[in-house]
Amino acid sequence: MTILYNRVALIGLGLIAGSMSLAMRRAGVAGEITGYARSSETRNTAREIGLVDHVCDTALDAVKDADLVVLAVPVGAMGTVMAEIAPALKQGAVVTDVGSVKGDIFASVLPHLPEQAEFIGTHPMAGTEHSGPNSGFAELFDKRWCLIVPPEGASETEIQRLEKFWRALGSDTKRMEAEHHDLVCAVVSHTPHLIAYTMVGVADDLSRVTDQEVIEFSAAGFRDFTRIAASDPTMWRDVFLSNKDATLEILGRFTEELFALQRAIRIGDGDHLHDYFTRTRAIRRGIIEAGQDTDAPNFGRHSDAT
Amino acid sequence: MTILYNRVALIGLGLIAGSMSLAMRRAGVAGEITGYARSSETRNTAREIGLVDHVCDTALDAVKDADLVVLAVPVGAMGTVMAEIAPALKQGAVVTDVGSVKGDIFASVLPHLPEQAEFIGTHPMAGTEHSGPNSGFAELFDKRWCLIVPPEGASETEIQRLEKFWRALGSDTKRMEAEHHDLVCAVVSHTPHLIAYTMVGVADDLSRVTDQEVIEFSAAGFRDFTRIAASDPTMWRDVFLSNKDATLEILGRFTEELFALQRAIRIGDGDHLHDYFTRTRAIRRGIIEAGQDTDAPNFGRHSDAT
Ligand SMILES: NC(=O)c1ccc[n+]([C@@H]2O[C@H](COP(=O)([O-])OP(=O)(O)OC[C@H]3O[C@@H](n4cnc5c(N)ncnc54)[C@H](OP(=O)(O)O)[C@@H]3O)[C@@H](O)[C@H]2O)c1
Ligand SMILES: NC(=O)c1ccc[n+]([C@@H]2O[C@H](COP(=O)([O-])OP(=O)(O)OC[C@H]3O[C@@H](n4cnc5c(N)ncnc54)[C@H](OP(=O)(O)O)[C@@H]3O)[C@@H](O)[C@H]2O)c1
Repeated sequence: MTILYNRVALIGLGLIAGSMSLAMRRAGVAGEITGYARSSETRNTAREIGLVDHVCDTALDAVKDADLVVLAVPVGAMGTVMAEIAPALKQGAVVTDVGSVKGDIFASVLPHLPEQAEFIGTHPMAGTEHSGPNSGFAELFDKRWCLIVPPEGASETEIQRLEKFWRALGSDTKRMEAEHHDLVCAVVSHTPHLIAYTMVGVADDLSRVTDQEVIEFSAAGFRDFTRIAASDPTMWRDVFLSNKDATLEILGRFTEELFALQRAIRIGDGDHLHDYFTRTRAIRRGIIEAGQDTDAPNFGRHSDAT
Repeated sequence: MTILYNRVALIGLGLIAGSMSLAMRRAGVAGEITGYARSSETRNTAREIGLVDHVCDTALDAVKDADLVVLAVPVGAMGTVMAEIAPALKQGAVVTDVGSVKGDIFASVLPHLPEQAEFIGTHPMAGTEHSGPNSGFAELFDKRWCLIVPPEGASETEIQRLEKFWRALGSDTKRMEAEHHDLVCAVVSHTPHLIAYTMVGVADDLSRVTDQEVIEFSAAGFRDFTRIAASDPTMWRDVFLSNKDATLEILGRFTEELFALQRAIRIGDGDHLHDYFTRTRAIRRGIIEAGQDTDAPNFGRHSDAT
C-alpha cells in the first residue's frame, strides 16, 4: 500500500484511535503516527504498548507537521481540542474527527478551524463496549461502514484521499450530509442505546425482583440490552446531548408506538399485536440478507431463553 | 440414564417440543415418545424427520397411556388443548406445559384437569427466534434454566421427578411461584421484547430514513433489537395478552424512567445521564461474572458499530 499521509496525529488514545493506529500500520498508509491523550496515565500506557510511534506530552507537539489530524475524543470535547491545536496546524493539514454525531461537531469545531487547514468529518461505525488505550485492535473497521461527512465547500481531492484512507483501514465508505447522518444514527444507534440503558435501569430498580434473578435469567432477551448499555457513560452522555433534536424526535415516535402497543395489551387487541410483530420480521430478514448478521440461532451462541 | 417416564406425549411439535424429543433421546429418560400437532403439514414433517417415535393424528391418541404429557403450544391455546385431552388421560398422568407465562395458564388449564391427573408448570428459559418442527436441537436446554412452577398442593414426588427430567435434558432447575415467575419474566424477557418490537417498527415507519439505510447500518446497536423482534408473532401476542398485568406494570416503570432521561436530554442535564449510564454498567459486569455471557467484544462477533 502506498503512503497516503506522511504524518498522522491522533488526539485521544482510546478504542477508536488505538484501532486506527494498528489498522494504519497493517495497511502501511501512514509515514509516522504521533499521539496525545489528556491523562499521563493513558499516555504512559500507550508508550508501554507502543500504540503509536511517538506519544507527545502536548496536543500541540502531536499535531505539528501532521498532514492528517484525527480528533478521537468524546463528542463534547471536540471543540475545545480543535481550539487548542489550531495554532500548530501546518499549511494544508486535514483535520478529521471520528465522533458519533456530526451537526453539533461541525458547530463546535468549524469556528476554530484556521485558514490554512481543512476539516472533513468521518464516523467509523465500528465499536465495542470497551474503551481506553488497551482496547484497540487492527480489525475493528474491517467490512464496517465509515460515513464521510464533508462540510460545504470541502476539497474534493482531500475528501477522496480520506475515503481511500478509510478503505485502506478496512472500511466501506459512504458520503452523507451532517443532518441526515444524525437522523440515521438516532434511529439505528442512539435511541436503541437510550432504550437499552433505560430498561437496564428499571430492572436494577425493582425491589421485588432481585439483581441476582435479573442476572441469572438475563439470557431471556435482557442480555442484549445489557451489552448495549455497558458502553462508556461519557461517550454516550455526549452523544445524547449533542444529537438532541434527532434523538428527541425518534424518542417521540417510539413513545407513540409503544403507547399504541400498550393500549392493545390493555384492551386485549391481539390482532394489533400480531400484525405489528409480523411486520417487524421483514426487517430482520433484510439484515440477514444484507450480510449484516448471521441466521444461526442467537448469532451462533449456544442458546437463548424466553 | 434411567427411564423417568415410560411414555411421554408432546402436544405441539415446534421448537420446544422438538428439542425436548431430541434431548430426551440423548438422555434416554423416556421409554417412548408420541407427538401431535394441529396441522397435517407439521405432523408430516415430524414423521419424515422422525422427530418422535409416533406421530398421532389426534391429541387423544397421543396422550392415551402417557405418563407425562407436555403442552407445547402457544400460551393462548393451552386451556383448549387441556380440555380436549382431559378425557383420555390415564390414572396418575402428569401434565406439564412449557409456556412463557404461568398465572394465566394455571387459570385456563387447571379447571379442565381431571381428578386422576396432576398438573405442574415448567418454563424452559431457552429458545431461539426460529420455530416449527425443523427448528429443534438436542442441546437447546443445556445449562439453561428451567423454572418449575407447581400449583398449590402438587405432589412433591412428582415435582421432584419432573425436576430430575429437566436436569436430564440439560437444564438447571429452580422452583418459583406463578406470580413471581410472571413478574421476573416481564422484566428479563417480555418487556424487552415489546420494546425491541416497538423500536424496529419505528425504524421501519420513518420515511426520511430508508429501510436500506436501517439495514446497512444496523450493526450500530439496532441489530440486537431486530434479533429479539424476529421471534414468532403468535407466541408473543399470546405472551403479552396473558402476562398483561406484570408487563403493563414494568412498561409503566420503563416509561417513567425514559421520560426522566428524555427530560435530561432536553434540558442538557449531563450529570443525570452520566450517573444513570454508570449505574447500569454494574449489572452487565454481574452477568459476565455469572457466566451468562462472554466478555469478548460483541459476544466475540467481529465488530459492532456506533
Ligand atoms: N466506542 C465506540 O463504539 C465508538 C464508535 C464510533 C465512534 N466513536 C467516537 O469516537 C470517539 C472516541 O471514542 P472511544 O471509544 O475511542 O473513546 P475512549 O476509548 O474512551 O477514548 C477517549 C479518548 O479521549 C480522551 N478524552 C476524554 N475526554 C477528554 C477531554 N475532555 N478532553 C480531551 N481528551 C479527552 C481520553 O483521554 P484519557 O484516556 O486520558 O482520559 C481518551 O484517550 C468519540 O467521539 C465517540 O463518539 C466511538
Ligand atoms: N420459542 C421460544 O423461545 C420459547 C421459549 C420458552 C418457552 N416457549 C413456549 O413454548 C411454547 C411453544 O413454543 P414453540 O417455540 O415451540 O412454538 P412453535 O415452534 O411455533 O410450535 C408451536 C406448536 O404449537 C402448535 N399450535 C399452534 N397454535 C395452536 C393452537 N391454537 N392449537 C393447538 N396447537 C397449536 C403448532 O402446530 P402447527 O405447527 O400445526 O401450527 C406447533 O406445533 C409456547 O407456549 C411458548 O410460549 C417458547
